[in-house]
Amino acid sequence: MNAAAQPAFDAVDLIRTKRDGGALTDEAIDWLIRNYTGGVVSAEQMAALAMAIFFRGLDARELSRWTAAMIATGERMDFSSLSRPTVDKHSTGGVGDKITLPLAPLVAACGAAVPQLSGRGLGHTGGTLDKLEAIPGWRASLTTAEMLAQLEEVGAVICAAGSGLAPADKMLYALRDVTGTVESIPMISASIMSKKIAEGTSALVLDVKTGAGAFMKSRADSVALAQTMVGLGQAAGVTTVALVTAMDSPLGRSAGNAVEVAESVEVLAGGGPSDVVELTLALAREMLACAGIDADPARVLASGQAMDTWRAMIRAQGGDPDAPLPVARHTEVVRASSDGYLAGLDAMAIGVATWRLGAGRAKQGDPVQAAAGVTWHAGVGDPVRTGQPLFTLHTDTPERLPRALAALQGAASYSPTPVAPAPVLLERIDSA
Amino acid sequence: MNAAAQPAFDAVDLIRTKRDGGALTDEAIDWLIRNYTGGVVSAEQMAALAMAIFFRGLDARELSRWTAAMIATGERMDFSSLSRPTVDKHSTGGVGDKITLPLAPLVAACGAAVPQLSGRGLGHTGGTLDKLEAIPGWRASLTTAEMLAQLEEVGAVICAAGSGLAPADKMLYALRDVTGTVESIPMISASIMSKKIAEGTSALVLDVKTGAGAFMKSRADSVALAQTMVGLGQAAGVTTVALVTAMDSPLGRSAGNAVEVAESVEVLAGGGPSDVVELTLALAREMLACAGIDADPARVLASGQAMDTWRAMIRAQGGDPDAPLPVARHTEVVRASSDGYLAGLDAMAIGVATWRLGAGRAKQGDPVQAAAGVTWHAGVGDPVRTGQPLFTLHTDTPERLPRALAALQGAASYSPTPVAPAPVLLERIDSA
Repeated sequence: MNAAAQPAFDAVDLIRTKRDGGALTDEAIDWLIRNYTGGVVSAEQMAALAMAIFFRGLDARELSRWTAAMIATGERMDFSSLSRPTVDKHSTGGVGDKITLPLAPLVAACGAAVPQLSGRGLGHTGGTLDKLEAIPGWRASLTTAEMLAQLEEVGAVICAAGSGLAPADKMLYALRDVTGTVESIPMISASIMSKKIAEGTSALVLDVKTGAGAFMKSRADSVALAQTMVGLGQAAGVTTVALVTAMDSPLGRSAGNAVEVAESVEVLAGGGPSDVVELTLALAREMLACAGIDADPARVLASGQAMDTWRAMIRAQGGDPDAPLPVARHTEVVRASSDGYLAGLDAMAIGVATWRLGAGRAKQGDPVQAAAGVTWHAGVGDPVRTGQPLFTLHTDTPERLPRALAALQGAASYSPTPVAPAPVLLERIDSA
Repeated sequence: MNAAAQPAFDAVDLIRTKRDGGALTDEAIDWLIRNYTGGVVSAEQMAALAMAIFFRGLDARELSRWTAAMIATGERMDFSSLSRPTVDKHSTGGVGDKITLPLAPLVAACGAAVPQLSGRGLGHTGGTLDKLEAIPGWRASLTTAEMLAQLEEVGAVICAAGSGLAPADKMLYALRDVTGTVESIPMISASIMSKKIAEGTSALVLDVKTGAGAFMKSRADSVALAQTMVGLGQAAGVTTVALVTAMDSPLGRSAGNAVEVAESVEVLAGGGPSDVVELTLALAREMLACAGIDADPARVLASGQAMDTWRAMIRAQGGDPDAPLPVARHTEVVRASSDGYLAGLDAMAIGVATWRLGAGRAKQGDPVQAAAGVTWHAGVGDPVRTGQPLFTLHTDTPERLPRALAALQGAASYSPTPVAPAPVLLERIDSA
């Protein structure tokens, strides 16, 4: 019997403490997370606690400990053997957000090691791994040894996160998803940061999306989320900065899998949509500053070195960077319905259409179509004429077209007078 | 497929609606309760919803529908065949609260039918059935036919509630108990009133306890609970009135099982502690008024008719009203530690001591000792002298004495100057 060394808590007391506005002690938080993972604290108890946290929040100390406790349920990676400084990037997710694809090789080409442990898409936002799997031969799963070797040799790796990182977060996220407790800034922050801190990166740049196509619709919530995550990262010894960026319109000119790879390759080749280039360079500058590397990413991009790193990165994971990308068996064009200037493109509508065309999944484990997606032929601010092609829908399964077309109804808005494109970069957050 | 006739809801949407301050439609409430009982809405979803209701409440319409939906998951009793008007009483529970024992036969002796479906004790408050089971031969379980016959012939029945009444409430209460969501006035109200309405009584008097020994510690919360339950009863067509009564000190001079039966018999015999007599008569007057019976319960009590009905009621359920009650094998006396006047008796401390002596249970299904309990030999306001017997502890298992004595430490407080006993009857609530 070692009861003194192992303080026992009562889950109901802890739920009531949080419910009534109190703070949970460090020991109570450790006990809760460990015993939730261990099955002693039941799913219904954690659901009630999650709802209490939705209403009462977690203060900075509680949140740091909550995050650390989730990390402690799993393994931690260690990149300290690498000769390069590591820096990672995380986006809260948006439509057409392919930035990781050009960004990781660009920052690696500047001298950093970029370990991008990524996920798959669910719902209207795409997954980085789904996009890269459009490249023939490319594989998402690497052993830790393969990953370390690739980081040392190539500098960039984009691969699947192992299930060993913060398993408590996986359980808790699945629970929050079915209990209406996802929309909590502290729990979102702990979920993201527990995995990123467990990955063992020494620096992290966050791209917190805000707007109609983002998870966080309001600017104030997005800023609060950014501040909370920056505070969590810094408290854990990870140099962390966040950019709050616009997600009212989708990024670039494509949403889907192969279509986004193609657009990323255009950027690496020195072209591509200006918003994608701008955001890629802004994030690269932040990542390099966090990693303590003095390099100009615009020059490295223009030099072709980022493209070389991309090719090496794809090849290292079994992919053929020269293989043609899959092309959809069916396309359908939607034409502009007005003369004037494109005043808005509804990111959520385009995300839903992309999903319905087969590029995304309704539930975990569903297959996705590599070639499915939506491309658009004008951006916000561009002049348009009635009848000109506005969207092209791509799918292998034409029976999906009607519901995708329905999602795009009203997705474009028009103005008779010139419209300035909205800025992408809204705010930089470097402290809680 | 009859999808149109059976609107499908999404549990997560409904949780989020309540979480964000919205109201649930009648159809949504029906769907939630039916599908929670049916296992479609999971325990973790209901736990999250219960916590959201803790914070957001339920408005009068939602609460009526919630209660009706819980009733609809089970059977309803029907007393319409009886020649007497039915009237029921419910107490929210306190220490030494044996009022049901003299009250039911008294009101029956005045001409009403009193169907008291009761429960067992848990924690520091005793259960009416546990108390009556101290009487040799008495049994708590009756069939519906036995119950109806006894109500017609004797007028009063105190028996175990069947499991068929509002089974959703049983599930939900067990869930709330482990998820820190018990303390919600709408959910407490729905829990109590669903069972009382399903019992089919036409009138109901509520005894809502308030104070240190009650479930509701604050007067304002107790009044709000009383108003909510009265509103629910009236909306369901049950004539409902509530008395808010004090539970800082325990009722009468005893807490336990056999000791409370003995005190109740004293009251029926025309004696007994004045607070027990006062509360019994006050509740009897309310019950008779609700039932439309013009009778004076004080006169009926004094006439011995209530005692006759008690004896008939005990006999009808197999008990011997003349058999000696069990006596504890061990007693221990606690003496007054000061001269002066008794200024306070801590109901919670006495309830916990009673429980620890073996009169109550820590979990459902535990056995209880018929003879265990605490009696006290002075009430608030009485003069006391150092060293006079103040408490007697009764138990069959002397190893329980030390923890019971510990609970009683400081349970009595003294004043050098005279103290008036606090009033028992605080407030009468007859509308929401």
